Amino acid sequence: MPKEDAVTAILLLSCTDQKGLVASVSDFLYRHNGNIIHADQHTDPEQRVFLQRVEWEIRDFAIPREEIAASFRPIAQRFGMTWRLSFSDYTPRVALFVSRLAHCMHDLLARWRMGELRAAFPLVVSNHPDLQPLAEMFGLAYEFLPVTSESRASQERRIIERLREEKIDFLVLARYMQIVGDDLLEAYPNRIINIHHSFLPAFVGARPYHQAYERGVKIIGATAHYATHELDQGPIIAQEVVRVSHRDSVEDLARKGRDLEKVVLARAVDLHVRDRVIVYGNKTVAFD
Amino acid sequence: MPKEDAVTAILLLSCTDQKGLVASVSDFLYRHNGNIIHADQHTDPEQRVFLQRVEWEIRDFAIPREEIAASFRPIAQRFGMTWRLSFSDYTPRVALFVSRLAHCMHDLLARWRMGELRAAFPLVVSNHPDLQPLAEMFGLAYEFLPVTSESRASQERRIIERLREEKIDFLVLARYMQIVGDDLLEAYPNRIINIHHSFLPAFVGARPYHQAYERGVKIIGATAHYATHELDQGPIIAQEVVRVSHRDSVEDLARKGRDLEKVVLARAVDLHVRDRVIVYGNKTVAFD
Amino acid sequence: MPKEDAVTAILLLSCTDQKGLVASVSDFLYRHNGNIIHADQHTDPEQRVFLQRVEWEIRDFAIPREEIAASFRPIAQRFGMTWRLSFSDYTPRVALFVSRLAHCMHDLLARWRMGELRAAFPLVVSNHPDLQPLAEMFGLAYEFLPVTSESRASQERRIIERLREEKIDFLVLARYMQIVGDDLLEAYPNRIINIHHSFLPAFVGARPYHQAYERGVKIIGATAHYATHELDQGPIIAQEVVRVSHRDSVEDLARKGRDLEKVVLARAVDLHVRDRVIVYGNKTVAFD
Amino acid sequence: MPKEDAVTAILLLSCTDQKGLVASVSDFLYRHNGNIIHADQHTDPEQRVFLQRVEWEIRDFAIPREEIAASFRPIAQRFGMTWRLSFSDYTPRVALFVSRLAHCMHDLLARWRMGELRAAFPLVVSNHPDLQPLAEMFGLAYEFLPVTSESRASQERRIIERLREEKIDFLVLARYMQIVGDDLLEAYPNRIINIHHSFLPAFVGARPYHQAYERGVKIIGATAHYATHELDQGPIIAQEVVRVSHRDSVEDLARKGRDLEKVVLARAVDLHVRDRVIVYGNKTVAFD
Repeated sequence: MPKEDAVTAILLLSCTDQKGLVASVSDFLYRHNGNIIHADQHTDPEQRVFLQRVEWEIRDFAIPREEIAASFRPIAQRFGMTWRLSFSDYTPRVALFVSRLAHCMHDLLARWRMGELRAAFPLVVSNHPDLQPLAEMFGLAYEFLPVTSESRASQERRIIERLREEKIDFLVLARYMQIVGDDLLEAYPNRIINIHHSFLPAFVGARPYHQAYERGVKIIGATAHYATHELDQGPIIAQEVVRVSHRDSVEDLARKGRDLEKVVLARAVDLHVRDRVIVYGNKTVAFD
Repeated sequence: MPKEDAVTAILLLSCTDQKGLVASVSDFLYRHNGNIIHADQHTDPEQRVFLQRVEWEIRDFAIPREEIAASFRPIAQRFGMTWRLSFSDYTPRVALFVSRLAHCMHDLLARWRMGELRAAFPLVVSNHPDLQPLAEMFGLAYEFLPVTSESRASQERRIIERLREEKIDFLVLARYMQIVGDDLLEAYPNRIINIHHSFLPAFVGARPYHQAYERGVKIIGATAHYATHELDQGPIIAQEVVRVSHRDSVEDLARKGRDLEKVVLARAVDLHVRDRVIVYGNKTVAFD
Repeated sequence: MPKEDAVTAILLLSCTDQKGLVASVSDFLYRHNGNIIHADQHTDPEQRVFLQRVEWEIRDFAIPREEIAASFRPIAQRFGMTWRLSFSDYTPRVALFVSRLAHCMHDLLARWRMGELRAAFPLVVSNHPDLQPLAEMFGLAYEFLPVTSESRASQERRIIERLREEKIDFLVLARYMQIVGDDLLEAYPNRIINIHHSFLPAFVGARPYHQAYERGVKIIGATAHYATHELDQGPIIAQEVVRVSHRDSVEDLARKGRDLEKVVLARAVDLHVRDRVIVYGNKTVAFD
Repeated sequence: MPKEDAVTAILLLSCTDQKGLVASVSDFLYRHNGNIIHADQHTDPEQRVFLQRVEWEIRDFAIPREEIAASFRPIAQRFGMTWRLSFSDYTPRVALFVSRLAHCMHDLLARWRMGELRAAFPLVVSNHPDLQPLAEMFGLAYEFLPVTSESRASQERRIIERLREEKIDFLVLARYMQIVGDDLLEAYPNRIINIHHSFLPAFVGARPYHQAYERGVKIIGATAHYATHELDQGPIIAQEVVRVSHRDSVEDLARKGRDLEKVVLARAVDLHVRDRVIVYGNKTVAFD
């Protein structure tokens, strides 16, 4: 959490590439005495999309915090922007979805407890009871909601209700070994971060370490992506790899992979909470 | 090329895992005064396969070079080994297959010229005329053999003939953009090294950098493998990756990828010529 | 912890390189019906040192577990070996030394709790009170022992006493920001694992992320090594690196570095507890 | 070389961080109908330095190419900028300095011949005669200028004269194993790119692979930097690393290292010729 006088405003925007975009945004900030802390932009020349992230201090900014959005709207409308304004003193609320494996949950909660992640974790949701003691160790509520293909729709409605009660901003599937249904996906579009334990698009689906072992690859990976209707096909946020050899058994791959999974998932969550990711098409721009 | 008195014998073997294997091989070497330079072994517990590489100096070895194979044969037969004996003063002869892209060819020939690779390159085969000047710059013969799906079988028969005339030991497909036919594959089993410009099994087939760009991956790769009847499915010898971002265009991926391709291909060729690779099932053990 | 009938014996040995070494060890195992699970060796040609690790099942081994050492001793003596025999069902006892930073402690204790590390953590020692709540969350005793350069010798004597009471096998300095004195070093030779937050030998000493930032490096690292009398000069067990850029502040380096530190330290601890490391001279062989 | 109608102007600038910088530059481009192709900026909050790179098409730009500098000058003066304007159809002229090792020279010349590098290589300078045949193979002039500590000053004066005759823009020390003297350094400030075969600042000076072997590191590296008066202390442009193990001899380190050296050096040269590097203090910003 930033100190009060270091709070920043963050503008994430995307639109069709046009002349004058950068000039208009930078002029808006300059005219109102904005002290820019971070600015990055990207143009996708193929799809002719322009994407930008600007972060500036609100302390000396001429427009009061609650009026910034309204003041910027005319510019956004002129260029047809998709945009989002946020502030660095807001702490997003995360629901953690887990099954039986604890390493990603351990790692995220440790980061949270150490203040490394700007996020609150009020709630853990699971289709298994196994990780309830861990949730309690960190003082979190644990919703045990077993799911079958028949019960998915009704259970997810209950989950969504709970998420709304808790004012959850986004979901993290920390090795949650269940398909996420349509209702949940539509309730949190581009707001469900999943970790897949392979270097996507290699080894989509079940048991990727077994698949990697069978194929005899010399490098394995992990991928954090936004969940979409198609399994393991959503926009990729972060990936990491590690070298393996014939000496590594499936268990060794899983052991080495766990270290990738937790680091990659945490990096993706951190990028998301710091408003550094824009999704466009089936890709992301991660302004790191 | 090693100095005469530093010549080594190299034994590569594989068989069903059994007790006494290591003891028998090491006893054979010890009894005949073998000075072991390198020894490595691997047991695949799932397939119950044992694989070993031993390298020893022949200078003081009690068995003359030309009788080693015969002396070892009884041990090999007792354990049902698949095995190969070679000597470090033999220079394997390589045929380089290329199309239009020169970077892998440049790199391999530079290594050859600097004495980095223990291999001879008498011959370049291509389905395009483009790289003939480069072959000539390095003093190599260039066989221009255009291939269509109709002419493949007959052209490959001509190629095989040329390869036999040149006593070619193995083939390197250095960005050779043509399918290799059955006759050639069967003439050189596990002796055709291909470089595929992706992190296999991701992005099999054509235009992998375009596929990677479309998918929005954050890391790209290159894979050297033995060519088999199924496209891009053969045993993997070496892989390498490099980080990319939204800032990279398809051309940037190709540019970064070329550096991977040449390094990975050269590493695979080097492992092959130094007799460090054993293929078993659809995998390799690379004793590096 | 392995199931009773899967317990293995592990032999780690080193000696001057001589003919017959591999033959003698493998013959010893073969004669007594040893089923080898893992075997790896290394010869340092410059220092003429031979190093070996062999692991075999004790279930069907002809020599009872408690007599293996005595049976092997004659071979060890004949070759002048330094050696160590251990069993996979022994759980080494670790004392964790920490100061204020919690990430390595969190990570090691999470691994311990998940059963990823074959080690017991009865005791945390610290020169600061900060991490006592974390120790208690995991149910560990916490020895708060502030150290000044004057009090070091006397405090370390107290620590050594406590370590002996707890039958500690080895020490892990998990971002312990204090110099370790001679008494402690001599009580645990090659048994104190430290994590240094740089790619050693770059940035020895204090504030390596600041040093890295000042120097403008494009990659940072972390190094796990055995502590010795010379600061940051001990034998390196494991290293890892990550790419950084001009966009990264010192805080970003520290944030990225923490992920390296915890992964590298855990890897080193894991190699150590699985008896996969041999120290010779100022180096290690890590049989991974 | 870009096609005529795709030529771009590139502006590299740095100055004290001030409000209105981005607004002024983007307004300048927008007012004159500049189509921005690439824009990136960086603020060093500690040193309060602002650095920017902008690239735009000159085809439809309202200011004729030869007047752009004059038109921009008032803005530069207002903010006290250090700046440089260049055009993408200019091909910088490089002098390659080599000694005996050929791999970097081979690699750079191959890239040049394939059109991968936007640079001309009219001249090779060496303190050894060894690589003359290679220079001739690629059709380059070769200046054999042996240097001793006594003759350095006089020889370098002759070199500088030759470099001026050839209108050399910058120098690449491609494993040139000689100290570069003050005259040369001052004639080409931040225009001499050196490759050092270690992960700087580790292993400064002579025989870094031997030093790395002695220290027992688990990763080695290579560093491309601008040469300055202090040996191996100049601003780092690019670095790369590769994993090694106890199995690697000094020769193996050198072999693996050569692949790093050539890739890292080529990347640095490419960044330099595409005007993507700004030096400030003893660091670089590489806008990749």
